[in-house]
Amino acid sequence: MKSSLLTDHLRQYKLVLASGSPRRRHLLSEMGLSFNVLTTGVDEIIQFPQDPELSARQIASDKIRVLNNYDEHQLYIAADTVVVKNGAILNKPKDKHEAQVMLNSLSDSEHQVITGVALRSESKTEVFSETTIVTFNPLNNAEIDHYISSYKPFDKAGAYGIQEWIGINFIRKIEGSYFNVVGLPTARLYQEFMRF
Amino acid sequence: MKSSLLTDHLRQYKLVLASGSPRRRHLLSEMGLSFNVLTTGVDEIIQFPQDPELSARQIASDKIRVLNNYDEHQLYIAADTVVVKNGAILNKPKDKHEAQVMLNSLSDSEHQVITGVALRSESKTEVFSETTIVTFNPLNNAEIDHYISSYKPFDKAGAYGIQEWIGINFIRKIEGSYFNVVGLPTARLYQEFMRF
Repeated sequence: MKSSLLTDHLRQYKLVLASGSPRRRHLLSEMGLSFNVLTTGVDEIIQFPQDPELSARQIASDKIRVLNNYDEHQLYIAADTVVVKNGAILNKPKDKHEAQVMLNSLSDSEHQVITGVALRSESKTEVFSETTIVTFNPLNNAEIDHYISSYKPFDKAGAYGIQEWIGINFIRKIEGSYFNVVGLPTARLYQEFMRF
Repeated sequence: MKSSLLTDHLRQYKLVLASGSPRRRHLLSEMGLSFNVLTTGVDEIIQFPQDPELSARQIASDKIRVLNNYDEHQLYIAADTVVVKNGAILNKPKDKHEAQVMLNSLSDSEHQVITGVALRSESKTEVFSETTIVTFNPLNNAEIDHYISSYKPFDKAGAYGIQEWIGINFIRKIEGSYFNVVGLPTARLYQEFMRF
């Protein structure tokens, strides 16, 4: 068994997180890594009509493709998380009504959360995605309205955050990585970093 | 569908958490509930040779059985989390060596985390438990030693915290409730409170 730590393995790189998400910043930091943050102009508004996994990987790739200042020491990481219900991607809700419709569709059933990740150095690129199945208990209208008015989930794909009131009280079960739902498939990312 | 919130339903009670765990306090607070904290003398040191689920429920029950000052408005909640590998309960590790042995046994395999919960008012008691299956990626000796020396998991059953460095980097998958592994089966608890 190879006995080394990820921080030793990545010593040659200056890590750059190409994401404005405070949740991703928090997770990467809890992984024990030091990094800089650089937000890019690519937004998830772009629609990809294809397969949700390909879409998440494509958006993650695009977020670092726009960066041009590579040097041999930099390793960029970008990610995109999509929520999929009955094969369709749920984007960020535009208003209260759209959030209500999304949360009603997630109530008392399971859906998928897919995070696509792109890693890029001067010499190579790795793109992968991870899927977690999430099951909600039934949500009534008072619960949905309370969440939307208190937490304003308009910056969240699928209109919810698993680490917020609605996730803690109503997500009965997940199958896969919890942190993938928060925003990064951290255990997979650790392995991909070790192989990079 | 009944349209009400848990906070309305529990309005008649003064909630009391019989636990010194900051993680349980945090979860109950994130559930949106107001409560007082009361720590009792019952510790998880007590050994129950029986079934792990019964053991978790028994310890949770014991934590509130020792409380005598019931009044009609108080609702006590207590919990106990056990980590089970190959049918045997892993307690809190006594020293570095025991933590190393435990983490080696959890490496590259799955185990169960069971949280027993007891609710008690003046007129009734409810006891239940919830199980989550957790799968670790392989852990090497450097990783195990780094975690033990940096995080000192001697207060944690099974020698790890899912929300810490080792959980974020090496837990590949869970099946069940994430918050149950942290210390409370929050979605189940919401439903049990609504029925109480």
